[in-house]
Amino acid sequence: MKTETTIQGLSASLNPARAARKIIGFVPTMGNLHEGHLNLVRAARKLCDVVVVSIFVNPIQFGPNEDFDNYPRTLEHDSHLLAEVGCDIVFAPSVEQMYGKQPRLTNISVSEITNDLCGLQRPGHFDGVAVVVTKLFNIVQPNFAFFGQKDYQQLAVIKQLVRDLNMPIEVIGVPITRAEDGLALSSRNGYLSEQERATAPSMYATLQAAEKQLQNGQSLDVVLSNIRQQLTEAGFDVDYVEVRTPMLQKIGQFDQDIVLFVAAKLGKTRLIDNLQVKHST
Amino acid sequence: MKTETTIQGLSASLNPARAARKIIGFVPTMGNLHEGHLNLVRAARKLCDVVVVSIFVNPIQFGPNEDFDNYPRTLEHDSHLLAEVGCDIVFAPSVEQMYGKQPRLTNISVSEITNDLCGLQRPGHFDGVAVVVTKLFNIVQPNFAFFGQKDYQQLAVIKQLVRDLNMPIEVIGVPITRAEDGLALSSRNGYLSEQERATAPSMYATLQAAEKQLQNGQSLDVVLSNIRQQLTEAGFDVDYVEVRTPMLQKIGQFDQDIVLFVAAKLGKTRLIDNLQVKHST
Repeated sequence: MKTETTIQGLSASLNPARAARKIIGFVPTMGNLHEGHLNLVRAARKLCDVVVVSIFVNPIQFGPNEDFDNYPRTLEHDSHLLAEVGCDIVFAPSVEQMYGKQPRLTNISVSEITNDLCGLQRPGHFDGVAVVVTKLFNIVQPNFAFFGQKDYQQLAVIKQLVRDLNMPIEVIGVPITRAEDGLALSSRNGYLSEQERATAPSMYATLQAAEKQLQNGQSLDVVLSNIRQQLTEAGFDVDYVEVRTPMLQKIGQFDQDIVLFVAAKLGKTRLIDNLQVKHST
Repeated sequence: MKTETTIQGLSASLNPARAARKIIGFVPTMGNLHEGHLNLVRAARKLCDVVVVSIFVNPIQFGPNEDFDNYPRTLEHDSHLLAEVGCDIVFAPSVEQMYGKQPRLTNISVSEITNDLCGLQRPGHFDGVAVVVTKLFNIVQPNFAFFGQKDYQQLAVIKQLVRDLNMPIEVIGVPITRAEDGLALSSRNGYLSEQERATAPSMYATLQAAEKQLQNGQSLDVVLSNIRQQLTEAGFDVDYVEVRTPMLQKIGQFDQDIVLFVAAKLGKTRLIDNLQVKHST
Protein backbone atom coordinates (compact mmCIF):
# COMPACT_ATOMS: atom_id res chain seq x y z
CA MET A 1 0.00 0.00 0.00
CA LYS A 2 1.29 3.43 -0.97
CA THR A 3 0.62 6.67 0.88
CA GLU A 4 0.51 9.89 -1.13
CA THR A 5 0.26 13.33 0.42
CA THR A 6 0.33 15.43 -2.74
CA ILE A 7 -1.95 15.65 -5.77
CA GLN A 8 1.04 15.26 -8.05
CA GLY A 9 2.23 12.16 -6.19
CA LEU A 10 -1.23 10.62 -6.35
CA SER A 11 -1.46 11.29 -10.10
CA ALA A 12 1.93 9.67 -10.63
CA SER A 13 0.82 6.64 -8.61
CA LEU A 14 -2.45 6.34 -10.53
CA ASN A 15 -1.13 7.00 -14.04
CA PRO A 16 -0.10 3.39 -14.78
CA ALA A 17 -3.55 2.17 -13.68
CA ARG A 18 -5.25 4.80 -15.82
CA ALA A 19 -3.08 3.93 -18.83
CA ALA A 20 -4.03 0.26 -18.38
CA ARG A 21 -7.74 1.27 -18.21
CA LYS A 22 -8.08 -0.31 -14.77
CA ILE A 23 -11.24 0.24 -12.75
CA ILE A 24 -10.52 2.74 -9.96
CA GLY A 25 -12.59 2.68 -6.78
CA PHE A 26 -12.55 5.58 -4.34
CA VAL A 27 -13.55 5.85 -0.68
CA PRO A 28 -13.38 9.41 0.69
CA THR A 29 -13.06 9.54 4.49
CA MET A 30 -12.08 11.91 7.27
CA GLY A 31 -9.99 9.15 8.90
CA ASN A 32 -10.39 7.81 12.45
CA LEU A 33 -11.56 4.69 10.67
CA HIS A 34 -13.91 2.05 12.05
CA GLU A 35 -15.54 -1.07 10.62
CA GLY A 36 -18.05 1.09 8.76
CA HIS A 37 -15.27 2.67 6.71
CA LEU A 38 -13.53 -0.68 6.28
CA ASN A 39 -16.72 -2.13 4.83
CA LEU A 40 -16.69 0.66 2.25
CA VAL A 41 -13.14 -0.33 1.34
CA ARG A 42 -14.13 -4.01 1.15
CA ALA A 43 -17.01 -3.09 -1.18
CA ALA A 44 -14.56 -1.14 -3.37
CA ARG A 45 -12.07 -4.03 -3.26
CA LYS A 46 -14.71 -6.43 -4.63
CA LEU A 47 -15.71 -4.20 -7.53
CA CYS A 48 -12.49 -2.44 -8.57
CA ASP A 49 -8.92 -3.10 -9.69
CA VAL A 50 -7.38 -0.24 -7.74
CA VAL A 51 -8.73 1.11 -4.43
CA VAL A 52 -7.93 4.65 -3.31
CA VAL A 53 -8.93 5.87 0.17
CA SER A 54 -8.60 9.54 1.03
CA ILE A 55 -8.12 10.70 4.60
CA PHE A 56 -8.80 14.40 4.85
CA VAL A 57 -10.52 16.32 7.61
CA ASN A 58 -12.19 18.94 5.44
CA PRO A 59 -12.30 22.30 7.23
CA ILE A 60 -15.00 23.85 5.05
CA GLN A 61 -17.68 21.33 6.02
CA PHE A 62 -17.40 22.15 9.72
CA GLY A 63 -19.41 25.00 11.23
CA PRO A 64 -17.71 27.59 13.47
CA ASN A 65 -18.96 25.82 16.61
CA GLU A 66 -18.26 22.30 15.40
CA ASP A 67 -15.40 19.95 16.21
CA PHE A 68 -12.91 20.58 13.37
CA ASP A 69 -9.93 21.26 15.64
CA ASN A 70 -10.72 18.33 17.93
CA TYR A 71 -11.73 15.89 15.21
CA PRO A 72 -9.55 12.80 15.82
CA ARG A 73 -6.53 12.45 13.47
CA THR A 74 -5.18 8.89 13.62
CA LEU A 75 -3.35 8.43 10.30
CA GLU A 76 -0.91 5.77 11.46
CA HIS A 77 -3.58 3.51 12.93
CA ASP A 78 -5.87 4.15 9.96
CA SER A 79 -3.08 3.12 7.58
CA HIS A 80 -2.63 -0.22 9.34
CA LEU A 81 -6.36 -0.93 9.09
CA LEU A 82 -6.47 0.06 5.41
CA ALA A 83 -3.50 -2.15 4.51
CA GLU A 84 -5.29 -5.12 6.10
CA VAL A 85 -8.44 -4.70 3.99
CA GLY A 86 -6.59 -4.32 0.71
CA CYS A 87 -6.46 -0.60 0.07
CA ASP A 88 -3.89 0.19 -2.65
CA ILE A 89 -3.32 3.91 -2.17
CA VAL A 90 -4.00 6.19 0.79
CA PHE A 91 -4.33 9.84 -0.19
CA ALA A 92 -3.72 11.99 2.88
CA PRO A 93 -3.23 15.60 1.74
CA SER A 94 -2.74 18.66 3.92
CA VAL A 95 -5.31 21.46 3.95
CA GLU A 96 -2.91 23.57 1.92
CA GLN A 97 -2.47 20.80 -0.64
CA MET A 98 -6.23 20.62 -1.10
CA TYR A 99 -7.09 24.31 -0.99
CA GLY A 100 -3.84 26.00 -2.07
CA LYS A 101 -2.59 29.41 -1.07
CA GLN A 102 -4.86 31.42 -3.38
CA PRO A 103 -8.38 32.06 -2.10
CA ARG A 104 -11.05 29.69 -3.38
CA LEU A 105 -13.81 31.65 -5.14
CA THR A 106 -15.92 28.73 -6.36
CA ASN A 107 -18.81 27.33 -4.34
CA ILE A 108 -21.16 24.47 -5.12
CA SER A 109 -24.57 24.23 -3.54
CA VAL A 110 -27.28 21.60 -3.86
CA SER A 111 -30.63 23.18 -3.03
CA GLU A 112 -33.80 21.71 -1.48
CA ILE A 113 -32.49 18.37 -0.19
CA THR A 114 -29.79 20.18 1.79
CA ASN A 115 -32.29 22.55 3.45
CA ASP A 116 -33.69 19.67 5.47
CA LEU A 117 -32.74 17.17 8.19
CA CYS A 118 -29.08 17.68 9.20
CA GLY A 119 -28.76 20.61 6.78
CA LEU A 120 -31.04 22.75 8.95
CA GLN A 121 -28.72 22.46 11.93
CA ARG A 122 -25.52 22.71 9.90
CA PRO A 123 -25.73 25.66 7.48
CA GLY A 124 -23.05 25.43 4.76
CA HIS A 125 -22.13 21.87 5.75
CA PHE A 126 -23.31 20.25 2.53
CA ASP A 127 -21.77 23.02 0.40
CA GLY A 128 -18.45 22.14 2.02
CA VAL A 129 -19.05 18.45 1.35
CA ALA A 130 -20.01 19.13 -2.29
CA VAL A 131 -16.87 21.18 -2.90
CA VAL A 132 -14.43 18.72 -1.32
CA VAL A 133 -16.04 15.68 -2.94
CA THR A 134 -15.96 17.39 -6.35
CA LYS A 135 -12.30 18.28 -5.85
CA LEU A 136 -11.44 14.73 -4.73
CA PHE A 137 -13.38 13.23 -7.64
CA ASN A 138 -11.44 15.43 -10.08
CA ILE A 139 -8.14 14.51 -8.43
CA VAL A 140 -8.75 10.74 -8.19
CA GLN A 141 -11.00 10.38 -11.28
CA PRO A 142 -12.49 7.12 -10.04
CA ASN A 143 -14.98 4.91 -11.86
CA PHE A 144 -16.82 4.13 -8.62
CA ALA A 145 -17.10 6.05 -5.35
CA PHE A 146 -18.36 4.50 -2.12
CA PHE A 147 -20.31 6.25 0.64
CA GLY A 148 -22.02 4.90 3.73
CA GLN A 149 -25.79 4.95 4.08
CA LYS A 150 -25.42 6.12 7.66
CA ASP A 151 -24.90 9.62 6.27
CA TYR A 152 -27.95 9.04 4.09
CA GLN A 153 -28.53 12.71 3.32
CA GLN A 154 -24.89 13.17 2.33
CA LEU A 155 -25.18 10.18 0.00
CA ALA A 156 -28.34 11.66 -1.58
CA VAL A 157 -26.64 15.06 -2.01
CA ILE A 158 -23.64 13.46 -3.72
CA LYS A 159 -25.85 11.37 -6.02
CA GLN A 160 -27.71 14.55 -6.97
CA LEU A 161 -24.44 16.45 -7.52
CA VAL A 162 -23.06 13.69 -9.74
CA ARG A 163 -26.26 13.50 -11.78
CA ASP A 164 -26.71 17.28 -12.12
CA LEU A 165 -23.11 17.85 -13.24
CA ASN A 166 -22.77 14.68 -15.38
CA MET A 167 -19.76 13.49 -13.41
CA PRO A 168 -18.48 10.28 -15.03
CA ILE A 169 -18.65 8.36 -11.73
CA GLU A 170 -20.99 5.77 -10.29
CA VAL A 171 -21.85 6.43 -6.65
CA ILE A 172 -22.43 3.33 -4.53
CA GLY A 173 -24.27 3.50 -1.18
CA VAL A 174 -23.11 0.88 1.31
CA PRO A 175 -25.45 -0.29 4.13
CA ILE A 176 -24.86 0.92 7.68
CA THR A 177 -22.38 -1.09 9.75
CA ARG A 178 -23.63 -1.58 13.32
CA ALA A 179 -22.12 -2.69 16.59
CA GLU A 180 -23.50 -5.98 17.96
CA ASP A 181 -25.93 -4.00 20.10
CA GLY A 182 -27.22 -2.17 17.03
CA LEU A 183 -25.49 1.21 17.38
CA ALA A 184 -24.54 2.61 13.97
CA LEU A 185 -20.76 2.92 13.84
CA SER A 186 -19.52 6.51 13.79
CA SER A 187 -16.28 8.28 14.60
CA ARG A 188 -18.26 10.44 16.99
CA ASN A 189 -19.23 7.40 19.12
CA GLY A 190 -15.79 7.78 20.67
CA TYR A 191 -17.01 10.98 22.36
CA LEU A 192 -19.66 9.04 24.37
CA SER A 193 -19.24 8.39 28.10
CA GLU A 194 -19.68 4.81 29.29
CA GLN A 195 -23.23 5.53 30.39
CA GLU A 196 -24.09 7.33 27.13
CA ARG A 197 -22.62 4.45 25.15
CA ALA A 198 -24.95 2.09 27.04
CA THR A 199 -27.95 4.25 26.15
CA ALA A 200 -27.00 4.84 22.51
CA PRO A 201 -28.22 1.50 21.03
CA SER A 202 -31.80 2.38 21.95
CA MET A 203 -31.77 4.76 18.96
CA TYR A 204 -31.68 1.83 16.55
CA ALA A 205 -34.03 -0.27 18.72
CA THR A 206 -36.56 2.56 18.54
CA LEU A 207 -36.29 2.64 14.72
CA GLN A 208 -36.78 -1.13 14.57
CA ALA A 209 -39.84 -0.88 16.80
CA ALA A 210 -41.17 1.86 14.52
CA GLU A 211 -40.76 -0.38 11.49
CA LYS A 212 -42.88 -3.06 13.17
CA GLN A 213 -45.56 -0.54 14.10
CA LEU A 214 -45.72 0.64 10.49
CA GLN A 215 -45.98 -2.91 9.21
CA ASN A 216 -48.80 -3.48 11.68
CA GLY A 217 -50.72 -0.60 10.10
CA GLN A 218 -50.00 2.16 12.61
CA SER A 219 -50.10 5.64 11.00
CA LEU A 220 -46.90 7.53 10.20
CA ASP A 221 -47.80 10.43 12.50
CA VAL A 222 -48.28 8.17 15.49
CA VAL A 223 -45.12 6.20 14.75
CA LEU A 224 -42.99 9.34 14.44
CA SER A 225 -44.44 10.63 17.69
CA ASN A 226 -43.65 7.29 19.37
CA ILE A 227 -40.03 7.45 18.21
CA ARG A 228 -39.65 10.94 19.62
CA GLN A 229 -41.20 9.93 22.94
CA GLN A 230 -39.10 6.79 23.32
CA LEU A 231 -35.87 8.61 22.51
CA THR A 232 -36.67 11.33 25.02
CA GLU A 233 -37.51 8.77 27.69
CA ALA A 234 -34.23 6.96 27.01
CA GLY A 235 -32.37 10.23 27.73
CA PHE A 236 -31.80 11.64 24.25
CA ASP A 237 -32.20 15.32 23.43
CA VAL A 238 -34.07 14.90 20.14
CA ASP A 239 -33.05 17.11 17.23
CA TYR A 240 -35.40 15.63 14.63
CA VAL A 241 -37.52 12.57 13.85
CA GLU A 242 -38.53 12.60 10.20
CA VAL A 243 -39.70 10.44 7.32
CA ARG A 244 -38.80 10.93 3.66
CA THR A 245 -38.90 9.05 0.40
CA PRO A 246 -35.61 7.40 -0.63
CA MET A 247 -34.94 10.55 -2.73
CA LEU A 248 -35.61 12.73 0.36
CA GLN A 249 -39.00 14.04 -0.70
CA LYS A 250 -41.51 14.71 2.08
CA ILE A 251 -44.29 12.16 2.43
CA GLY A 252 -47.41 11.99 4.59
CA GLN A 253 -48.39 8.34 4.36
CA PHE A 254 -46.66 4.97 4.35
CA ASP A 255 -47.73 4.10 0.81
CA GLN A 256 -44.29 3.54 -0.75
CA ASP A 257 -40.76 2.73 0.39
CA ILE A 258 -39.66 5.26 3.00
CA VAL A 259 -36.69 6.14 5.17
CA LEU A 260 -37.00 7.03 8.87
CA PHE A 261 -34.43 9.58 10.07
CA VAL A 262 -33.43 10.50 13.60
CA ALA A 263 -30.86 12.89 15.03
CA ALA A 264 -30.47 13.31 18.77
CA LYS A 265 -27.88 14.27 21.33
CA LEU A 266 -26.55 12.24 24.23
CA GLY A 267 -24.77 14.82 26.36
CA LYS A 268 -22.72 16.84 23.89
CA THR A 269 -22.54 14.13 21.23
CA ARG A 270 -24.92 14.29 18.31
CA LEU A 271 -25.86 10.89 16.87
CA ILE A 272 -27.78 10.15 13.69
CA ASP A 273 -29.34 6.99 12.34
CA ASN A 274 -31.81 5.96 9.68
CA LEU A 275 -33.81 2.93 8.62
CA GLN A 276 -35.16 2.12 5.18
CA VAL A 277 -38.63 0.61 5.41
CA LYS A 278 -39.96 -1.25 2.39
CA HIS A 279 -43.62 -0.93 1.49
CA SER A 280 -45.10 -4.30 0.55
CA THR A 281 -47.18 -3.81 -2.58
CA MET B 1 -16.73 14.47 -39.05
CA LYS B 2 -19.36 12.90 -36.82
CA THR B 3 -22.31 14.67 -35.26
CA GLU B 4 -23.60 13.39 -31.92
CA THR B 5 -26.76 14.66 -30.27
CA THR B 6 -26.76 12.46 -27.16
CA ILE B 7 -24.33 12.05 -24.28
CA GLN B 8 -24.31 8.30 -24.82
CA GLY B 9 -23.55 8.69 -28.52
CA LEU B 10 -20.72 11.10 -27.79
CA SER B 11 -19.24 8.71 -25.22
CA ALA B 12 -19.39 5.85 -27.71
CA SER B 13 -17.66 8.04 -30.33
CA LEU B 14 -14.96 9.11 -27.88
CA ASN B 15 -14.29 5.75 -26.22
CA PRO B 16 -11.78 4.47 -28.79
CA ALA B 17 -9.82 7.74 -28.51
CA ARG B 18 -9.87 7.51 -24.71
CA ALA B 19 -8.75 3.86 -24.79
CA ALA B 20 -5.86 4.86 -27.06
CA ARG B 21 -4.96 7.68 -24.61
CA LYS B 22 -5.33 10.25 -27.37
CA ILE B 23 -5.26 13.94 -26.50
CA ILE B 24 -8.79 15.34 -26.64
CA GLY B 25 -9.36 19.02 -27.36
CA PHE B 26 -12.71 20.69 -26.68
CA VAL B 27 -14.25 23.93 -27.97
CA PRO B 28 -17.60 24.76 -26.33
CA THR B 29 -19.73 27.12 -28.43
CA MET B 30 -23.31 28.31 -28.77
CA GLY B 31 -23.10 27.89 -32.56
CA ASN B 32 -23.69 30.60 -35.16
CA LEU B 33 -19.99 30.25 -35.78
CA HIS B 34 -17.64 32.88 -37.17
CA GLU B 35 -13.90 33.07 -37.75
CA GLY B 36 -13.36 33.62 -34.01
CA HIS B 37 -14.79 30.20 -33.23
CA LEU B 38 -12.97 28.64 -36.16
CA ASN B 39 -9.69 29.96 -34.80
CA LEU B 40 -10.45 28.18 -31.51
CA VAL B 41 -10.94 24.96 -33.46
CA ARG B 42 -7.72 25.54 -35.40
CA ALA B 43 -5.86 26.05 -32.10
CA ALA B 44 -7.35 22.77 -30.81
CA ARG B 45 -6.46 21.01 -34.07
CA LYS B 46 -2.80 22.00 -33.69
CA LEU B 47 -2.50 20.74 -30.12
CA CYS B 48 -4.78 17.71 -29.96
CA ASP B 49 -5.43 14.32 -31.58
CA VAL B 50 -9.22 14.57 -31.42
CA VAL B 51 -11.20 17.81 -31.59
CA VAL B 52 -14.73 18.01 -30.17
CA VAL B 53 -16.86 21.13 -30.69
CA SER B 54 -20.13 21.50 -28.80
CA ILE B 55 -22.97 23.61 -30.14
CA PHE B 56 -25.46 24.29 -27.39
CA VAL B 57 -27.43 27.45 -26.70
CA ASN B 58 -27.46 27.19 -22.92
CA PRO B 59 -30.75 28.53 -21.51
CA ILE B 60 -29.52 29.01 -17.93
CA GLN B 61 -26.89 31.60 -18.86
CA PHE B 62 -29.47 33.94 -20.42
CA GLY B 63 -31.36 36.42 -18.26
CA PRO B 64 -35.14 36.74 -18.54
CA ASN B 65 -34.82 39.79 -20.81
CA GLU B 66 -32.00 38.44 -22.93
CA ASP B 67 -32.02 36.90 -26.37
CA PHE B 68 -32.25 33.13 -25.67
CA ASP B 69 -35.27 32.53 -27.90
CA ASN B 70 -33.91 34.66 -30.72
CA TYR B 71 -30.31 33.53 -30.45
CA PRO B 72 -29.40 32.33 -33.98
CA ARG B 73 -29.38 28.54 -34.45
CA THR B 74 -27.51 27.62 -37.64
CA LEU B 75 -26.41 24.03 -37.09
CA GLU B 76 -26.19 23.02 -40.73
CA HIS B 77 -24.03 25.96 -41.76
CA ASP B 78 -21.93 25.60 -38.59
CA SER B 79 -21.31 21.93 -39.43
CA HIS B 80 -19.97 22.80 -42.88
CA LEU B 81 -17.57 25.33 -41.38
CA LEU B 82 -16.40 22.90 -38.69
CA ALA B 83 -15.76 20.12 -41.19
CA GLU B 84 -13.54 22.48 -43.17
CA VAL B 85 -11.31 23.34 -40.22
CA GLY B 86 -10.81 19.75 -39.12
CA CYS B 87 -13.27 19.23 -36.29
CA ASP B 88 -13.71 15.49 -35.57
CA ILE B 89 -16.93 15.44 -33.56
CA VAL B 90 -19.75 17.98 -33.25
CA PHE B 91 -21.75 17.56 -30.07
CA ALA B 92 -25.15 19.23 -30.53
CA PRO B 93 -27.42 18.12 -27.69
CA SER B 94 -30.98 19.27 -26.99
CA VAL B 95 -31.81 21.19 -23.81
CA GLU B 96 -33.48 18.04 -22.47
CA GLN B 97 -30.41 15.95 -23.23
CA MET B 98 -28.26 18.38 -21.24
CA TYR B 99 -30.60 19.10 -18.35
CA GLY B 100 -32.82 16.01 -18.20
CA LYS B 101 -36.40 15.81 -17.02
CA GLN B 102 -35.65 15.91 -13.29
CA PRO B 103 -35.09 19.35 -11.81
CA ARG B 104 -31.46 20.39 -11.41
CA LEU B 105 -30.71 21.21 -7.77
CA THR B 106 -26.99 21.88 -8.07
CA ASN B 107 -25.60 25.35 -8.67
CA ILE B 108 -22.03 26.54 -9.04
CA SER B 109 -21.01 30.09 -8.36
CA VAL B 110 -17.68 31.82 -8.64
CA SER B 111 -17.65 34.84 -6.35
CA GLU B 112 -15.88 38.23 -6.60
CA ILE B 113 -14.67 38.12 -10.23
CA THR B 114 -18.26 37.52 -11.40
CA ASN B 115 -19.62 40.50 -9.43
CA ASP B 116 -17.89 42.88 -11.75
CA LEU B 117 -17.84 44.03 -15.39
CA CYS B 118 -20.44 42.07 -17.40
CA GLY B 119 -21.54 40.18 -14.26
CA LEU B 120 -23.08 43.34 -12.81
CA GLN B 121 -25.45 43.70 -15.77
CA ARG B 122 -26.13 39.97 -16.09
CA PRO B 123 -26.98 38.47 -12.67
CA GLY B 124 -26.72 34.68 -12.72
CA HIS B 125 -25.07 34.66 -16.15
CA PHE B 126 -21.72 33.31 -14.96
CA ASP B 127 -23.40 30.74 -12.68
CA GLY B 128 -25.14 29.43 -15.79
CA VAL B 129 -21.85 29.38 -17.67
CA ALA B 130 -20.08 27.60 -14.78
CA VAL B 131 -22.75 24.90 -14.62
CA VAL B 132 -22.89 24.19 -18.34
CA VAL B 133 -19.12 24.24 -18.77
CA THR B 134 -18.71 21.85 -15.82
CA LYS B 135 -21.33 19.53 -17.32
CA LEU B 136 -19.71 19.65 -20.76
CA PHE B 137 -16.25 19.08 -19.27
CA ASN B 138 -17.56 16.01 -17.42
CA ILE B 139 -19.26 14.72 -20.57
CA VAL B 140 -16.36 15.30 -22.98
CA GLN B 141 -13.50 14.83 -20.46
CA PRO B 142 -11.03 16.76 -22.61
CA ASN B 143 -7.35 17.30 -21.92
CA PHE B 144 -7.51 20.86 -23.28
CA ALA B 145 -10.40 23.30 -23.57
CA PHE B 146 -10.28 26.43 -25.74
CA PHE B 147 -12.01 29.74 -25.03
CA GLY B 148 -11.77 33.10 -26.76
CA GLN B 149 -10.18 36.08 -25.04
CA LYS B 150 -12.97 38.27 -26.34
CA ASP B 151 -15.08 36.97 -23.44
CA TYR B 152 -12.14 37.69 -21.17
CA GLN B 153 -14.16 37.61 -17.95
CA GLN B 154 -15.72 34.28 -18.91
CA LEU B 155 -12.25 32.87 -19.57
CA ALA B 156 -11.05 34.10 -16.16
CA VAL B 157 -14.11 32.59 -14.45
CA ILE B 158 -13.51 29.23 -16.11
CA LYS B 159 -9.82 29.25 -15.23
CA GLN B 160 -10.77 29.98 -11.61
CA LEU B 161 -13.43 27.22 -11.63
CA VAL B 162 -10.97 24.68 -13.04
CA ARG B 163 -8.30 25.60 -10.48
CA ASP B 164 -10.67 25.73 -7.49
CA LEU B 165 -12.23 22.35 -8.29
CA ASN B 166 -9.03 20.62 -9.47
CA MET B 167 -10.56 19.78 -12.83
CA PRO B 168 -8.03 17.72 -14.82
CA ILE B 169 -8.19 20.07 -17.80
CA GLU B 170 -5.91 22.75 -19.19
CA VAL B 171 -7.80 25.88 -20.26
CA ILE B 172 -6.32 27.74 -23.22
CA GLY B 173 -7.24 31.35 -23.97
CA VAL B 174 -7.11 32.21 -27.68
CA PRO B 175 -6.55 35.84 -28.82
CA ILE B 176 -9.48 37.84 -30.19
CA THR B 177 -10.21 37.46 -33.87
CA ARG B 178 -11.05 40.80 -35.50
CA ALA B 179 -12.57 41.92 -38.75
CA GLU B 180 -10.22 43.85 -41.06
CA ASP B 181 -11.58 47.10 -39.65
CA GLY B 182 -10.76 45.94 -36.10
CA LEU B 183 -14.22 44.96 -34.83
CA ALA B 184 -13.98 41.93 -32.53
CA LEU B 185 -15.93 39.09 -34.12
CA SER B 186 -19.12 38.19 -32.24
CA SER B 187 -22.33 36.39 -33.07
CA ARG B 188 -24.14 39.48 -31.88
CA ASN B 189 -22.53 41.61 -34.62
CA GLY B 190 -25.22 40.17 -36.89
CA TYR B 191 -27.79 42.26 -34.99
CA LEU B 192 -26.13 45.54 -36.08
CA SER B 193 -27.71 47.78 -38.72
CA GLU B 194 -25.48 48.89 -41.59
CA GLN B 195 -24.89 52.22 -39.93
CA GLU B 196 -24.17 50.64 -36.53
CA ARG B 197 -21.77 48.20 -38.18
CA ALA B 198 -19.91 51.17 -39.65
CA THR B 199 -19.63 52.77 -36.20
CA ALA B 200 -18.69 49.57 -34.33
CA PRO B 201 -14.94 49.45 -35.21
CA SER B 202 -14.35 52.68 -33.33
CA MET B 203 -14.60 50.62 -30.13
CA TYR B 204 -11.31 48.90 -30.89
CA ALA B 205 -9.77 52.08 -32.33
CA THR B 206 -10.53 53.80 -29.04
CA LEU B 207 -8.83 51.00 -27.09
CA GLN B 208 -5.77 51.24 -29.34
CA ALA B 209 -5.62 54.99 -28.84
CA ALA B 210 -5.85 54.42 -25.08
CA GLU B 211 -2.91 52.02 -25.20
CA LYS B 212 -0.80 54.70 -26.90
CA GLN B 213 -1.82 57.31 -24.33
CA LEU B 214 -0.80 54.95 -21.51
CA GLN B 215 2.53 54.23 -23.12
CA ASN B 216 3.06 58.00 -23.45
CA GLY B 217 2.63 58.30 -19.69
CA GLN B 218 -0.96 59.53 -19.49
CA SER B 219 -2.64 58.53 -16.20
CA LEU B 220 -5.13 55.66 -16.07
CA ASP B 221 -7.96 57.90 -14.86
CA VAL B 222 -7.58 60.29 -17.76
CA VAL B 223 -7.26 57.47 -20.29
CA LEU B 224 -10.41 55.73 -19.02
CA SER B 225 -12.26 59.00 -19.15
CA ASN B 226 -11.04 59.56 -22.72
CA ILE B 227 -12.30 56.14 -23.80
CA ARG B 228 -15.72 56.85 -22.34
CA GLN B 229 -15.90 60.25 -24.03
CA GLN B 230 -14.78 58.95 -27.43
CA LEU B 231 -17.24 56.05 -27.36
CA THR B 232 -20.08 58.37 -26.43
CA GLU B 233 -19.13 60.81 -29.18
CA ALA B 234 -19.05 57.94 -31.67
CA GLY B 235 -22.65 57.10 -30.76
CA PHE B 236 -22.24 54.30 -28.20
CA ASP B 237 -24.31 54.06 -25.07
CA VAL B 238 -21.48 53.17 -22.67
CA ASP B 239 -22.13 50.46 -20.11
CA TYR B 240 -18.66 50.38 -18.56
CA VAL B 241 -15.05 51.36 -19.21
CA GLU B 242 -12.77 49.61 -16.74
CA VAL B 243 -9.23 48.47 -16.11
CA ARG B 244 -8.19 45.31 -14.25
CA THR B 245 -5.15 43.14 -13.76
CA PRO B 246 -4.99 40.02 -15.97
CA MET B 247 -6.58 38.11 -13.02
CA LEU B 248 -9.38 40.72 -12.84
CA GLN B 249 -8.20 42.49 -9.70
CA LYS B 250 -8.87 46.23 -9.49
CA ILE B 251 -5.89 48.47 -10.04
CA GLY B 252 -5.33 52.21 -9.74
CA GLN B 253 -2.10 52.75 -11.64
CA PHE B 254 -0.47 51.46 -14.80
CA ASP B 255 2.43 49.79 -12.96
CA GLN B 256 1.99 46.23 -14.23
CA ASP B 257 0.33 44.44 -17.16
CA ILE B 258 -3.33 45.45 -17.38
CA VAL B 259 -6.44 44.78 -19.40
CA LEU B 260 -8.77 47.54 -20.62
CA PHE B 261 -12.44 46.53 -20.77
CA VAL B 262 -15.34 48.21 -22.52
CA ALA B 263 -19.01 47.32 -22.92
CA ALA B 264 -21.35 49.61 -24.83
CA LYS B 265 -24.53 49.49 -26.81
CA LEU B 266 -25.13 50.47 -30.39
CA GLY B 267 -28.90 50.66 -30.66
CA LYS B 268 -30.13 47.47 -28.97
CA THR B 269 -26.92 45.52 -29.50
CA ARG B 270 -24.45 45.26 -26.65
CA LEU B 271 -20.84 44.93 -27.75
CA ILE B 272 -17.80 44.15 -25.60
CA ASP B 273 -14.11 44.34 -26.27
CA ASN B 274 -10.86 44.33 -24.35
CA LEU B 275 -7.19 45.02 -24.87
CA GLN B 276 -4.25 43.65 -22.92
CA VAL B 277 -1.62 46.32 -22.35
CA LYS B 278 1.87 45.21 -21.35
CA HIS B 279 3.80 47.23 -18.82
CA SER B 280 7.42 47.63 -19.89
CA THR B 281 9.59 47.00 -16.84
